[in-house]
Amino acid sequence: MKLLKEKIEAEGKVLSDSVLKVDAFLNQQVDPVLMQQLGREFAQRFSADNITKVLTLESSGIAPALMAALQLGVPLLFARKKKSVTMTDNCYSSTVYSFTKKEANDITIDKKFIKANDRILIVDDFMANGEAALGLIDIVEQAGARVSGIGIVIEKSFQPGGAKIRSAGYQVESLVKIASLENNTVQFADDDEAQSTKQLALKN
Amino acid sequence: MKLLKEKIEAEGKVLSDSVLKVDAFLNQQVDPVLMQQLGREFAQRFSADNITKVLTLESSGIAPALMAALQLGVPLLFARKKKSVTMTDNCYSSTVYSFTKKEANDITIDKKFIKANDRILIVDDFMANGEAALGLIDIVEQAGARVSGIGIVIEKSFQPGGAKIRSAGYQVESLVKIASLENNTVQFADDDEAQSTKQLALKN
Repeated sequence: MKLLKEKIEAEGKVLSDSVLKVDAFLNQQVDPVLMQQLGREFAQRFSADNITKVLTLESSGIAPALMAALQLGVPLLFARKKKSVTMTDNCYSSTVYSFTKKEANDITIDKKFIKANDRILIVDDFMANGEAALGLIDIVEQAGARVSGIGIVIEKSFQPGGAKIRSAGYQVESLVKIASLENNTVQFADDDEAQSTKQLALKN
Repeated sequence: MKLLKEKIEAEGKVLSDSVLKVDAFLNQQVDPVLMQQLGREFAQRFSADNITKVLTLESSGIAPALMAALQLGVPLLFARKKKSVTMTDNCYSSTVYSFTKKEANDITIDKKFIKANDRILIVDDFMANGEAALGLIDIVEQAGARVSGIGIVIEKSFQPGGAKIRSAGYQVESLVKIASLENNTVQFADDDEAQSTKQLALKN
Protein backbone atom coordinates (compact mmCIF):
# COMPACT_ATOMS: atom_id res chain seq x y z
CA MET A 1 0.00 0.00 0.00
CA LYS A 2 1.81 2.99 -1.41
CA LEU A 3 0.32 5.59 0.93
CA LEU A 4 1.41 3.65 4.01
CA LYS A 5 4.92 3.17 2.66
CA GLU A 6 5.22 6.90 2.13
CA LYS A 7 4.02 7.53 5.67
CA ILE A 8 6.57 5.05 7.05
CA GLU A 9 9.33 6.64 4.98
CA ALA A 10 8.37 10.14 6.14
CA GLU A 11 7.56 9.52 9.80
CA GLY A 12 8.79 6.07 10.86
CA LYS A 13 11.94 5.75 12.95
CA VAL A 14 14.25 2.76 12.84
CA LEU A 15 15.32 2.13 16.45
CA SER A 16 17.29 -1.07 15.82
CA ASP A 17 17.61 -3.90 13.27
CA SER A 18 14.27 -5.23 14.48
CA VAL A 19 12.31 -2.25 15.83
CA LEU A 20 10.46 0.32 13.73
CA LYS A 21 8.79 3.11 15.70
CA VAL A 22 5.60 4.47 14.14
CA ASP A 23 4.26 6.37 17.12
CA ALA A 24 3.74 9.46 14.94
CA PHE A 25 0.73 7.97 13.12
CA LEU A 26 -0.19 4.58 14.62
CA ASN A 27 1.08 3.73 18.10
CA GLN A 28 0.61 6.87 20.15
CA GLN A 29 -0.38 9.67 17.80
CA VAL A 30 -2.90 8.25 15.35
CA ASP A 31 -3.78 9.66 11.92
CA PRO A 32 -7.55 9.11 11.66
CA VAL A 33 -7.71 9.66 7.87
CA LEU A 34 -4.94 7.14 7.32
CA MET A 35 -6.76 4.69 9.63
CA GLN A 36 -9.87 5.14 7.49
CA GLN A 37 -7.86 4.32 4.38
CA LEU A 38 -6.30 1.24 6.03
CA GLY A 39 -9.79 0.14 7.10
CA ARG A 40 -11.07 0.44 3.53
CA GLU A 41 -8.12 -1.54 2.21
CA PHE A 42 -8.70 -4.37 4.73
CA ALA A 43 -12.42 -4.39 3.93
CA GLN A 44 -11.67 -4.63 0.23
CA ARG A 45 -9.17 -7.48 0.61
CA PHE A 46 -11.64 -9.53 2.67
CA SER A 47 -14.84 -8.41 0.96
CA ALA A 48 -15.65 -11.89 -0.36
CA ASP A 49 -15.38 -13.58 3.04
CA ASN A 50 -18.70 -12.68 4.68
CA ILE A 51 -16.91 -11.43 7.79
CA THR A 52 -19.20 -11.18 10.83
CA LYS A 53 -16.76 -9.62 13.33
CA VAL A 54 -13.35 -7.98 13.43
CA LEU A 55 -11.10 -9.00 16.33
CA THR A 56 -8.02 -7.19 17.61
CA LEU A 57 -5.91 -6.84 20.73
CA GLU A 58 -5.71 -3.66 22.81
CA SER A 59 -4.37 -1.03 22.32
CA SER A 60 -2.62 -0.22 19.03
CA GLY A 61 -4.78 -2.56 16.97
CA ILE A 62 -8.00 -0.78 17.91
CA ALA A 63 -7.81 2.18 15.52
CA PRO A 64 -7.22 0.31 12.23
CA ALA A 65 -9.52 -2.55 13.33
CA LEU A 66 -12.36 -0.14 14.17
CA MET A 67 -12.14 1.41 10.72
CA ALA A 68 -12.09 -2.03 9.06
CA ALA A 69 -15.17 -3.03 11.09
CA LEU A 70 -16.96 0.20 10.17
CA GLN A 71 -16.26 -0.40 6.50
CA LEU A 72 -17.34 -4.06 6.66
CA GLY A 73 -20.48 -3.13 8.61
CA VAL A 74 -19.73 -5.49 11.52
CA PRO A 75 -18.86 -5.12 15.23
CA LEU A 76 -15.30 -4.80 16.50
CA LEU A 77 -14.06 -6.95 19.37
CA PHE A 78 -10.91 -6.18 21.29
CA ALA A 79 -9.24 -8.75 23.50
CA ARG A 80 -7.85 -7.41 26.76
CA LYS A 81 -4.38 -8.02 28.10
CA LYS A 82 -5.58 -8.00 31.68
CA LYS A 83 -8.36 -10.21 32.96
CA SER A 84 -11.19 -8.21 34.45
CA VAL A 85 -12.29 -9.68 37.79
CA THR A 86 -15.92 -9.76 36.65
CA MET A 87 -15.25 -11.88 33.55
CA THR A 88 -12.80 -14.53 34.76
CA ASP A 89 -15.10 -17.54 34.66
CA ASN A 90 -16.72 -16.83 31.38
CA CYS A 91 -14.00 -15.96 28.91
CA TYR A 92 -11.75 -17.47 26.30
CA SER A 93 -8.13 -16.79 27.02
CA SER A 94 -4.73 -17.44 25.50
CA THR A 95 -1.18 -16.61 26.51
CA VAL A 96 0.77 -14.21 24.32
CA TYR A 97 4.48 -13.65 24.77
CA SER A 98 5.84 -10.27 23.74
CA PHE A 99 9.46 -10.41 22.57
CA THR A 100 9.81 -6.61 22.69
CA LYS A 101 8.38 -6.30 26.20
CA LYS A 102 9.80 -9.65 27.38
CA GLU A 103 6.60 -10.55 29.18
CA ALA A 104 3.66 -12.90 28.77
CA ASN A 105 0.08 -11.65 28.87
CA ASP A 106 -3.10 -13.66 29.14
CA ILE A 107 -5.39 -12.14 26.56
CA THR A 108 -9.09 -12.62 27.19
CA ILE A 109 -12.46 -12.09 25.62
CA ASP A 110 -15.92 -12.71 27.01
CA LYS A 111 -17.39 -15.95 25.60
CA LYS A 112 -20.67 -14.30 24.70
CA PHE A 113 -19.06 -12.27 21.92
CA ILE A 114 -17.84 -15.14 19.69
CA LYS A 115 -20.23 -17.79 18.42
CA ALA A 116 -19.49 -20.93 16.38
CA ASN A 117 -21.02 -19.44 13.25
CA ASP A 118 -18.85 -16.30 13.34
CA ARG A 119 -16.40 -15.60 10.54
CA ILE A 120 -13.68 -13.50 12.10
CA LEU A 121 -11.19 -11.11 10.56
CA ILE A 122 -8.23 -10.60 12.91
CA VAL A 123 -6.56 -7.19 12.54
CA ASP A 124 -3.37 -6.02 14.24
CA ASP A 125 -0.86 -3.22 13.82
CA PHE A 126 2.34 -5.29 13.55
CA MET A 127 3.31 -8.85 12.70
CA ALA A 128 6.74 -9.91 13.94
CA ASN A 129 6.96 -13.32 15.61
CA GLY A 130 3.23 -13.85 15.21
CA GLU A 131 2.54 -14.34 18.91
CA ALA A 132 -0.43 -11.95 19.12
CA ALA A 133 -2.04 -13.30 15.94
CA LEU A 134 -1.58 -16.89 17.15
CA GLY A 135 -3.21 -16.00 20.48
CA LEU A 136 -6.18 -14.41 18.70
CA ILE A 137 -6.48 -17.40 16.32
CA ASP A 138 -6.45 -19.68 19.38
CA ILE A 139 -9.32 -17.72 20.95
CA VAL A 140 -11.43 -17.81 17.76
CA GLU A 141 -10.90 -21.55 17.43
CA GLN A 142 -11.70 -22.21 21.10
CA ALA A 143 -15.11 -20.71 20.23
CA GLY A 144 -15.44 -23.07 17.26
CA ALA A 145 -15.62 -20.04 14.96
CA ARG A 146 -13.78 -19.54 11.68
CA VAL A 147 -10.68 -17.37 11.18
CA SER A 148 -11.44 -15.86 7.77
CA GLY A 149 -8.12 -14.11 7.62
CA ILE A 150 -5.55 -11.92 9.30
CA GLY A 151 -5.05 -8.30 8.29
CA ILE A 152 -1.77 -6.69 9.38
CA VAL A 153 -0.81 -3.06 8.97
CA ILE A 154 2.98 -3.62 8.99
CA GLU A 155 4.56 -7.05 8.64
CA LYS A 156 8.24 -7.41 9.43
CA SER A 157 8.75 -10.26 6.98
CA PHE A 158 12.32 -10.84 8.18
CA GLN A 159 10.78 -12.19 11.38
CA PRO A 160 9.06 -15.59 11.34
CA GLY A 161 5.41 -14.80 12.22
CA GLY A 162 3.97 -14.29 8.75
CA ALA A 163 5.57 -17.40 7.23
CA LYS A 164 4.54 -19.53 10.22
CA ILE A 165 0.90 -18.43 10.08
CA ARG A 166 0.61 -18.65 6.28
CA SER A 167 2.11 -22.16 6.31
CA ALA A 168 -0.55 -23.14 8.85
CA GLY A 169 -3.09 -22.33 6.12
CA TYR A 170 -4.34 -18.87 7.09
CA GLN A 171 -4.72 -15.96 4.70
CA VAL A 172 -2.50 -13.15 5.95
CA GLU A 173 -2.86 -9.79 4.20
CA SER A 174 -0.22 -7.26 5.19
CA LEU A 175 -0.60 -3.71 3.92
CA VAL A 176 3.16 -3.33 3.83
CA LYS A 177 5.94 -5.86 4.34
CA ILE A 178 9.34 -4.81 5.59
CA ALA A 179 12.23 -7.02 4.46
CA SER A 180 14.90 -5.38 6.57
CA LEU A 181 15.63 -2.57 9.02
CA GLU A 182 19.40 -2.98 8.81
CA ASN A 183 21.71 0.04 8.43
CA ASN A 184 19.01 2.25 9.89
CA THR A 185 17.02 1.90 6.66
CA VAL A 186 13.53 0.61 5.94
CA GLN A 187 13.74 -1.88 3.07
CA PHE A 188 10.30 -2.92 1.82
CA ALA A 189 9.79 -6.51 0.61
CA ASP A 190 9.82 -7.16 -3.12
CA ASP A 191 6.36 -8.72 -3.39
CA ASP A 192 5.02 -5.55 -1.89
CA GLU A 193 6.67 -3.55 -4.67
CA ALA A 194 5.29 -6.02 -7.20
CA GLN A 195 1.83 -5.52 -5.77
CA SER A 196 2.13 -1.75 -5.88
CA THR A 197 3.23 -1.98 -9.50
CA LYS A 198 0.34 -4.33 -10.21
CA GLN A 199 -2.13 -1.98 -8.54
CA LEU A 200 -0.71 0.91 -10.52
CA ALA A 201 -1.01 -1.12 -13.73
CA LEU A 202 -4.64 -1.93 -12.91
CA LYS A 203 -5.42 1.72 -12.41
CA ASN A 204 -3.93 2.69 -15.81
CA MET B 1 -28.07 11.83 23.33
CA LYS B 2 -31.17 9.78 22.71
CA LEU B 3 -29.54 7.08 20.60
CA LEU B 4 -26.95 6.35 23.27
CA LYS B 5 -29.61 6.20 26.00
CA GLU B 6 -31.54 3.65 23.97
CA LYS B 7 -28.38 1.60 23.50
CA ILE B 8 -27.67 1.70 27.25
CA GLU B 9 -31.26 0.71 28.02
CA ALA B 10 -31.15 -2.15 25.54
CA GLU B 11 -27.65 -3.53 26.10
CA GLY B 12 -26.17 -2.06 29.28
CA LYS B 13 -26.00 -4.15 32.44
CA VAL B 14 -26.14 -2.74 35.95
CA LEU B 15 -23.62 -4.74 37.99
CA SER B 16 -23.95 -2.76 41.22
CA ASP B 17 -25.08 0.65 42.50
CA SER B 18 -21.95 2.15 40.93
CA VAL B 19 -21.00 -0.10 38.00
CA LEU B 20 -22.65 -0.10 34.58
CA LYS B 21 -21.29 -2.66 32.14
CA VAL B 22 -21.40 -1.60 28.48
CA ASP B 23 -19.09 -4.23 27.04
CA ALA B 24 -21.68 -5.03 24.35
CA PHE B 25 -21.03 -1.82 22.42
CA LEU B 26 -18.17 0.16 23.99
CA ASN B 27 -15.77 -1.68 26.30
CA GLN B 28 -15.06 -5.00 24.59
CA GLN B 29 -17.42 -5.33 21.66
CA VAL B 30 -17.57 -1.96 19.92
CA ASP B 31 -20.33 -0.70 17.63
CA PRO B 32 -18.44 1.24 14.91
CA VAL B 33 -21.52 3.06 13.59
CA LEU B 34 -22.44 4.22 17.10
CA MET B 35 -18.81 5.34 17.60
CA GLN B 36 -19.11 7.37 14.40
CA GLN B 37 -22.25 9.03 15.72
CA LEU B 38 -20.61 9.78 19.09
CA GLY B 39 -17.63 11.24 17.23
CA ARG B 40 -19.91 13.51 15.23
CA GLU B 41 -21.69 14.66 18.38
CA PHE B 42 -18.39 15.51 20.12
CA ALA B 43 -17.15 17.34 17.03
CA GLN B 44 -20.35 19.36 16.89
CA ARG B 45 -20.26 20.31 20.58
CA PHE B 46 -16.65 21.53 20.31
CA SER B 47 -16.80 22.85 16.74
CA ALA B 48 -16.15 26.46 17.80
CA ASP B 49 -13.01 25.66 19.79
CA ASN B 50 -10.38 25.27 17.03
CA ILE B 51 -9.30 21.92 18.46
CA THR B 52 -5.85 20.83 17.23
CA LYS B 53 -5.68 17.37 18.83
CA VAL B 54 -7.91 14.86 20.59
CA LEU B 55 -6.38 13.12 23.62
CA THR B 56 -7.60 9.93 25.29
CA LEU B 57 -6.32 7.12 27.49
CA GLU B 58 -5.96 3.52 26.31
CA SER B 59 -7.99 1.36 25.71
CA SER B 60 -11.73 2.02 25.86
CA GLY B 61 -11.42 5.71 25.04
CA ILE B 62 -9.69 5.05 21.71
CA ALA B 63 -12.75 4.18 19.58
CA PRO B 64 -14.95 7.22 20.37
CA ALA B 65 -11.89 9.53 20.46
CA LEU B 66 -10.68 8.32 17.06
CA MET B 67 -14.07 9.08 15.53
CA ALA B 68 -14.14 12.54 17.14
CA ALA B 69 -10.64 13.23 15.78
CA LEU B 70 -11.65 12.05 12.30
CA GLN B 71 -14.66 14.33 12.34
CA LEU B 72 -12.65 17.31 13.63
CA GLY B 73 -9.89 16.67 11.09
CA VAL B 74 -7.13 16.46 13.71
CA PRO B 75 -4.78 13.75 15.05
CA LEU B 76 -5.68 11.48 17.96
CA LEU B 77 -3.27 10.95 20.84
CA PHE B 78 -3.63 8.14 23.31
CA ALA B 79 -1.80 8.14 26.62
CA ARG B 80 -0.44 4.77 27.70
CA LYS B 81 -0.89 3.19 31.09
CA LYS B 82 2.51 1.55 30.98
CA LYS B 83 5.70 3.44 30.38
CA SER B 84 7.55 2.16 27.37
CA VAL B 85 11.26 1.73 28.10
CA THR B 86 12.21 3.78 25.03
CA MET B 87 10.22 6.86 26.07
CA THR B 88 10.89 7.19 29.79
CA ASP B 89 13.09 10.29 29.70
CA ASN B 90 11.06 12.24 27.26
CA CYS B 91 7.44 12.03 28.29
CA TYR B 92 4.83 13.82 30.29
CA SER B 93 3.32 11.58 32.92
CA SER B 94 0.67 11.71 35.61
CA THR B 95 -0.62 9.22 38.15
CA VAL B 96 -4.20 8.02 37.79
CA TYR B 97 -5.92 6.00 40.49
CA SER B 98 -8.65 3.62 39.38
CA PHE B 99 -11.32 3.08 42.03
CA THR B 100 -12.80 0.08 40.18
CA LYS B 101 -9.45 -1.64 39.69
CA LYS B 102 -8.01 -0.36 42.99
CA GLU B 103 -4.66 0.41 41.40
CA ALA B 104 -2.64 3.45 40.35
CA ASN B 105 -1.22 3.77 36.86
CA ASP B 106 1.32 6.23 35.58
CA ILE B 107 -0.09 7.46 32.30
CA THR B 108 2.43 8.79 29.81
CA ILE B 109 2.69 10.53 26.50
CA ASP B 110 5.75 11.44 24.48
CA LYS B 111 6.55 15.15 24.84
CA LYS B 112 6.90 15.66 21.10
CA PHE B 113 3.15 15.19 20.57
CA ILE B 114 1.86 18.13 22.64
CA LYS B 115 3.03 21.68 21.97
CA ALA B 116 2.20 24.86 23.89
CA ASN B 117 -0.03 26.14 21.08
CA ASP B 118 -2.19 22.99 21.02
CA ARG B 119 -5.88 23.20 21.89
CA ILE B 120 -6.78 19.78 23.19
CA LEU B 121 -10.11 18.00 23.40
CA ILE B 122 -9.93 15.21 25.99
CA VAL B 123 -12.30 12.30 25.25
CA ASP B 124 -13.00 9.31 27.48
CA ASP B 125 -15.61 6.56 27.74
CA PHE B 126 -16.66 7.09 31.38
CA MET B 127 -16.53 9.83 33.97
CA ALA B 128 -16.89 8.64 37.58
CA ASN B 129 -14.44 10.11 40.09
CA GLY B 130 -12.69 12.07 37.36
CA GLU B 131 -9.26 10.57 37.97
CA ALA B 132 -8.49 9.77 34.33
CA ALA B 133 -9.67 13.18 33.10
CA LEU B 134 -7.63 14.95 35.80
CA GLY B 135 -4.55 12.97 34.79
CA LEU B 136 -5.03 13.91 31.15
CA ILE B 137 -5.64 17.59 32.07
CA ASP B 138 -2.43 17.49 34.12
CA ILE B 139 -0.48 16.19 31.09
CA VAL B 140 -1.88 18.87 28.75
CA GLU B 141 -1.04 21.61 31.25
CA GLN B 142 2.48 20.27 31.85
CA ALA B 143 2.95 20.90 28.11
CA GLY B 144 1.65 24.46 28.50
CA ALA B 145 -1.17 23.64 26.08
CA ARG B 146 -4.84 24.47 26.49
CA VAL B 147 -7.59 22.05 27.54
CA SER B 148 -10.44 23.18 25.30
CA GLY B 149 -12.86 20.77 26.84
CA ILE B 150 -13.64 17.26 28.00
CA GLY B 151 -15.99 15.00 26.06
CA ILE B 152 -17.37 12.01 27.98
CA VAL B 153 -19.50 9.23 26.55
CA ILE B 154 -21.18 8.25 29.85
CA GLU B 155 -20.99 10.39 32.99
CA LYS B 156 -22.10 8.86 36.26
CA SER B 157 -23.23 12.16 37.71
CA PHE B 158 -23.88 10.61 41.15
CA GLN B 159 -20.10 10.32 41.45
CA PRO B 160 -18.01 13.45 42.05
CA GLY B 161 -15.79 13.69 38.93
CA GLY B 162 -17.99 15.84 36.68
CA ALA B 163 -18.82 18.40 39.38
CA LYS B 164 -15.19 18.62 40.48
CA ILE B 165 -13.87 19.24 36.98
CA ARG B 166 -16.64 21.68 36.00
CA SER B 167 -16.09 23.68 39.17
CA ALA B 168 -12.40 23.91 38.27
CA GLY B 169 -13.55 25.80 35.16
CA TYR B 170 -13.42 23.18 32.43
CA GLN B 171 -16.19 22.58 29.90
CA VAL B 172 -17.35 18.98 30.31
CA GLU B 173 -19.76 17.65 27.69
CA SER B 174 -21.23 14.26 28.55
CA LEU B 175 -23.33 12.52 25.91
CA VAL B 176 -25.43 10.92 28.63
CA LYS B 177 -25.51 11.48 32.37
CA ILE B 178 -26.61 8.76 34.73
CA ALA B 179 -28.13 9.98 38.01
CA SER B 180 -28.42 6.58 39.66
CA LEU B 181 -27.88 2.85 39.19
CA GLU B 182 -29.79 1.92 42.34
CA ASN B 183 -32.35 -0.92 42.33
CA ASN B 184 -30.65 -2.41 39.29
CA THR B 185 -32.07 0.44 37.17
CA VAL B 186 -30.42 3.06 34.99
CA GLN B 187 -31.86 6.46 35.92
CA PHE B 188 -30.75 9.18 33.51
CA ALA B 189 -30.14 12.68 34.88
CA ASP B 190 -32.86 15.30 34.40
CA ASP B 191 -30.72 17.86 32.62
CA ASP B 192 -29.99 15.24 30.03
CA GLU B 193 -33.72 14.89 29.39
CA ALA B 194 -34.01 18.66 29.28
CA GLN B 195 -31.21 18.84 26.74
CA SER B 196 -32.82 16.17 24.56
CA THR B 197 -36.06 18.10 24.63
CA LYS B 198 -34.20 21.29 23.78
CA GLN B 199 -32.45 19.60 20.87
CA LEU B 200 -35.77 18.25 19.68
CA ALA B 201 -37.28 21.72 19.93
CA LEU B 202 -34.42 23.17 17.92
CA LYS B 203 -34.94 20.61 15.16
CA ASN B 204 -38.68 21.34 14.84
